[in-house]
Parts: sequence; structure tokens; C-alpha cells
Amino acid sequence: MHPELVDELAIEAETKIIFYLLDGVGGLPIEEGGPTELEAASTPNLDALAKKSICGMLDPVSPGITPGSGPGHFALFGYDPVENTIGRGILEAAGIDFALKPGDVAARGNFATIDKNGVVIDRRAGRLSNEKNRELVEKIRPVLTPQEGVKFHLETVKEHRVVLVLRGEGLSEAIPDTDPQALGVPPLEPRPLREEAQKTSRLVKGVIEKARGVLAQEPKANFLIFRGFAQHKLFKSFRELYKLKSLAIAAYPMYRGLARMVGMDIYPPVETLDEELSALEEKYADYDFFFLHYKKSDSTGEDGNFVAKQEAISAADAALLRILALKPDVLVVTGDHSTPSFLKLHSWHPVPVILYSKACRADGVEVFSERACVSGGLGRMPMVNLMPLALANAGRLTKYGA
Amino acid sequence: MHPELVDELAIEAETKIIFYLLDGVGGLPIEEGGPTELEAASTPNLDALAKKSICGMLDPVSPGITPGSGPGHFALFGYDPVENTIGRGILEAAGIDFALKPGDVAARGNFATIDKNGVVIDRRAGRLSNEKNRELVEKIRPVLTPQEGVKFHLETVKEHRVVLVLRGEGLSEAIPDTDPQALGVPPLEPRPLREEAQKTSRLVKGVIEKARGVLAQEPKANFLIFRGFAQHKLFKSFRELYKLKSLAIAAYPMYRGLARMVGMDIYPPVETLDEELSALEEKYADYDFFFLHYKKSDSTGEDGNFVAKQEAISAADAALLRILALKPDVLVVTGDHSTPSFLKLHSWHPVPVILYSKACRADGVEVFSERACVSGGLGRMPMVNLMPLALANAGRLTKYGA
Repeated sequence: MHPELVDELAIEAETKIIFYLLDGVGGLPIEEGGPTELEAASTPNLDALAKKSICGMLDPVSPGITPGSGPGHFALFGYDPVENTIGRGILEAAGIDFALKPGDVAARGNFATIDKNGVVIDRRAGRLSNEKNRELVEKIRPVLTPQEGVKFHLETVKEHRVVLVLRGEGLSEAIPDTDPQALGVPPLEPRPLREEAQKTSRLVKGVIEKARGVLAQEPKANFLIFRGFAQHKLFKSFRELYKLKSLAIAAYPMYRGLARMVGMDIYPPVETLDEELSALEEKYADYDFFFLHYKKSDSTGEDGNFVAKQEAISAADAALLRILALKPDVLVVTGDHSTPSFLKLHSWHPVPVILYSKACRADGVEVFSERACVSGGLGRMPMVNLMPLALANAGRLTKYGA
Repeated sequence: MHPELVDELAIEAETKIIFYLLDGVGGLPIEEGGPTELEAASTPNLDALAKKSICGMLDPVSPGITPGSGPGHFALFGYDPVENTIGRGILEAAGIDFALKPGDVAARGNFATIDKNGVVIDRRAGRLSNEKNRELVEKIRPVLTPQEGVKFHLETVKEHRVVLVLRGEGLSEAIPDTDPQALGVPPLEPRPLREEAQKTSRLVKGVIEKARGVLAQEPKANFLIFRGFAQHKLFKSFRELYKLKSLAIAAYPMYRGLARMVGMDIYPPVETLDEELSALEEKYADYDFFFLHYKKSDSTGEDGNFVAKQEAISAADAALLRILALKPDVLVVTGDHSTPSFLKLHSWHPVPVILYSKACRADGVEVFSERACVSGGLGRMPMVNLMPLALANAGRLTKYGA
């Protein structure tokens, strides 16, 4: 993969590309020799599509590496997931549709409980309700007045989780987690890990102290702990890199946030796959590229629920008909990683992929499954190649060299 | 691929390697589920060879990237096609068997028509005959006297196309196209893009003005426009890199030119595949490596003529018998890229390959086709790996490390 070539060779065209992303779609059998969730699911439409497509197996990062959602999606979008990284704080802010600016430093936060000796006794403050979280955030905000030219944003995520964003000059992400990730020990200090982080360190310390003052009388949520300090930078956009006018449709905020980082337009929050498809239909005329994110194949895998994941994939298969009805020039179906219910976690396994276009050069793959895609014409390749392949199939990459 | 390792490990041997290059051999079905040109062709000899060979699919550059003939052949010859590039002007000069020297700057030129206001009204001057082109070139040459120690070579390519070569000290390729690639606008100035291109800029300006003087009375071809200024540099030769005494046999000048760039000896121009094979037989005792270039599988694809491409491949298959009769130690059959008649263009699709040697480790591939080669033992890999594999199979690479 040569990102500089793709940048140089991308051209405008009248074609449309849809990425139908079944999050965590790859799986594992729960018994030796048994089917995976995908193999057990009812997938007549995906199978029919696979038959006239080129298929294969994609490694999101490289063999053996289990990707988080950030690297998985960056690879999917054609950005080298090792060269292009996003910190957790940034991902969390993106995940609540917070409009980050370059230079912002963000961290994930938890409401936590400390006892009278100052040691953490509950890292999640008994998992607050969202309402309680919002109420506490409202209380803290007024005391977080600007300091040294820096503004503070504290935002509810859900339950015990918040995001802290610092916006101003001279900030740094070189701050360690203050969340000790253990009970019976005090929270850690936000000391500067490098010289240039002195100012950020002071500011974060101030936030923690002021919040502690506000929360002093709370029975459970009497402290804020942070992790994943990260600074926001802009990535080259889909428009700049690929000359694509692109739209992301995703029920979960994190995926909207990831798409926003590469400059996609974002469809307003919707809840169900049905609503996502309606959004796709509504906006189909207005964009060249559509990122349609389906979450349920991942969350059911993380729950370790084989049957629920199988059913989630069957539902995604049924929904495919509405996508096919739009007759996209290029249709890609894949995942950003595998999430086998057997492991209840993201995994390192490659992800099966279908790439359809009239010029895709179909292989002999007859069904969409992990086993069948091994014999696909794409072979096994890094996922970062998928985007150039989609562009080529859409007639959106010119020839390299004379 | 580790070019430095191949360089270090290559040794002399008594073995012979033939690369039988079916230009643009990879194709596509013209109807869903139908055969490709290669699958439709009659290929009993290639199929029999595939059966005792190792097969696979090669990406000339990387997935999704459509290569020009330059990158396609460089990858084939084992040179990284992104690290080793050739400008258009150099390729064009190579394509007419012009013997370039290191430091030469070459550009492609067109006879064009400008109107009395100096704007381009025909970028091809009505596509001259080759005779008219040669006649005009003969007229211009005498006025292109050496300037500032630099000599000028103006050469007919065909129709409206010429090559300009500047030879001397202190030249630079940092000159923009003067061809505006549009009508109704004046030709562009050959201004220096960098400080060191001042001299070249002056010289090219002089060429354009002098040619304009000579062409003033021509009804159509009254101006010369240039593009693709490029400076010639030597690549490490086959002899240096691989310790191979190599011969290129090609009916088309561009492929002789590409082979010349990597230091191959060049068999004098021949016309037909039959004559190419006679050349191979004639010189077989004198060389270690033979690059035998067959053009018709590409030109028929570019014409969009499925049946003609199918027949061209059938003819290449019949010709294989004469190659096999020489009993080469290593025989490679592949293309430099795909040229599906469905697209009428070079394409990004990987190219099927056969690699035969007594030690090749044959796989289960039974026929030479795009679909069958997907399951080959070489898998899908970058084409640049082919040359080291050929050398290894020829017993021409020693062990790496103790």
C-alpha cells in the first residue's frame, strides 16, 4: 500500500461506493469443527453477493495484532493504522459527538469513590445513572473557569463516564493516567511526563481539586479519575485524499467520531439499522461514499452471546436488500475486526470481506464465511489496501506511471 | 522483498531462465459468471505447464494500483516500481530505440496547431502522417545547433508525436509541460521549476522558438508542445544485481527500451512472435536470461476486442512449444499487468503467473487462468518478488546468513 500514490492518482468520477461495516463480524466456532457465528447465520443475500464478488481475508493491522475500534476503522478508511493513531481521550470525545479542534487535549474520566484516607474504593462510583452524571457535571462546570488562557469542557458520556477537554495554547498529552486501575490505592498525580507538559499538568491538577471540592458531600461520586490523555490532530480528509464526498451513518457516537476525523459528513444520530438504511436512501444522491456502521455484530460478540451474534448477522443479511436496491457501483461488506463470542473480545483474526463491482473479477467463493473467504481472490492482505481497491473498482484511480 | 539481499546473494550458475511475458494477459469476463479472455482461450500447453509449476497472482505495484508499462516491467525485473521510476520523456525516447546516456533530458512532443492569436486549436495537428512528421523533423533539425555546450536531438515517434532529447552538462528535468492539455489557450512556458533548471529552460525555449520559425508556413503543424521532461539515470544492471547475462527480444520498441534501462542486451527489432522465437533459439546458447515480450495480448485488450485477445493468447500458447523445446531451467509465464477488454485499459487486477523449474514445488493448479491461479502456491504477492524466486529456482541465490 502506497498512500502517496493513492493521493496522487485519485480522480473524481460519477460512481458510488458503499462500505457496509458489520462491526466485529469475524468469529470462531464454540465447539471444534462447528460453525462460526457468521457460518451459523442465515445469509442468503450475502452469499449471493459473495458469488459475484471478489472475497478475501483482511488483517486490520497485521497478523496477530488485535485492533481497537480506532485502528480497525483507520485501516478500513485506508489510513495506515500504525502511522495514524488516536488517543483514547480523543476517541471518547469523538464518541459523544464533541466537536474537537486541533490542539485540544482530551481524557476519559470516571466518577469514582475515594474513602476518607483518599484511596479509591470504587472506580465507577457504583455506576451512576446518566441523570446523576449530568447533574454532577452541571455542578462542576461553573468552577472550571479558564486558567492560563485555557478553557475546560466537562461532558457526560454515560453512567460513571465523562470526557474532559482542554482547549487553548501550549497544551500537551504527556500526562499519565490518574486512574490507578486498582482499588485500595490513591489516585495518581497528573505529573508532567515531559517538560512541555508542565502547564497541562498544573491545569489538570486544578480540575481534579476543584471537582473534589464540588463533590465533597457526594456519598459515592466524590472524585474524578482520568486516563488516556491525548491531543487532537487533523488527518487528511477523504475529500483531499480520495476526492470523495463522504457520509457516515452510524448509530453509535464513536463511529461517527472516527468518521469525522477523516472529514466525512455525519448523518445525525439514529438508533436502528432500519433508520440507518433510511438515512442511506435519503442521502444517496448527495454523496459518493457511504460508511454504514452496524454495531450489533460486535456488541453481541463482546457479550459472548453466540446465538445473538448469529441473529445480528442474519438481520444484517436481510437488510442488505435495501442496499442492493440502490445499485452502488462498488459495495464492500466487511468488519473492522473480529469479535468471536467464544472470546468475548475483539480478536486478532482477519476479517472476511466481499468487494463487489462489475469489474471486480469474481473468484470461486460461493458463501460469505471465514472459511470460504480464505480461498478468495483478494487472498489475505492488510486491510489498508481495501480503500485503494474500492477506489480502483469505482474508476476513481488513474494509471500509475507511463 | 529485499533488493539488497538479492544483490548480495546472487551467484553465477550454468542455468537458463526465460521470462515469457504476455503483456496485459490478465482479463475479466464480459458477462457475469462468464470466462475471462485467458479462460476462453485454447491453452493446452500453458495448462500442462501450470500443472507441473507453482502458480499464483502478482500485484505489479500494490492492490488497487493500475500500472503503466514502466512500473509493470520494473516490478517484473525485480526493481521496486515505486522507488525506481522513469519519466514519460525517457520512456518515449526508449520507445524509439533512442540510445540515451545518463544525464540526457528527454520530453515527449506533439506537432500542434496554434491560431493567429497564439492559442492551441489542435493538440495533434490533425494527426499527421508518419511521412509528414519525418519531413518536418528533417526541416527543424538544421536550426537546432548546439547551444551552451548542449546538443539537441529531435526524433519522429509517429503521427504527431516526437521526442526531444537534450544532451550535455548541467541539464535538469525541472521543466513543466508546455502542452496545456486544453484547447483555446496558449502553450505554456518552459519556465524553470527550480533554480538549477534555468539553463534547460532557456534551451527549451530556444528549441520552441526556432521550430516555430521553421514551421511558420505550415497549415496545421505550426508549433511544438512538450510534456514529461525527464532526466535519464542508469539503474543497476541485471549483470550487476543478478549476475545474469540477459537478452531482451521484443517487437515493440518501448519494451526494448525498458530492458535497455536495466542493462539487458537487445535483440534487433523483429515483427512477429515467430521471429521472436527464432531469435530466442538463435541466441539461446549465448545468454543466461531471456525476456521475451509478446505484445498482442495487451493491444487486443486495449482495443476492447475480447475475441482477438482470446486468440492472441491461444497463439501465445501454441508458441510455448518452441520455448519448452529449449528446456530452460526456469520458465516464467506472466504479464506485466492486466488489460481486460471489458475495460479497454490497463487495470489494477493482479496477474496470473506460472513459475516452472524442477524444484518449483508444484501446487494443485490444473489450468492457467485468473480463477485457478488464485489457489496457487505463490498466493497473491507483489510482483517484485518474482525475480528473486526465478533466481532461487535457477540455483542462482545462495543462503542468507549462517
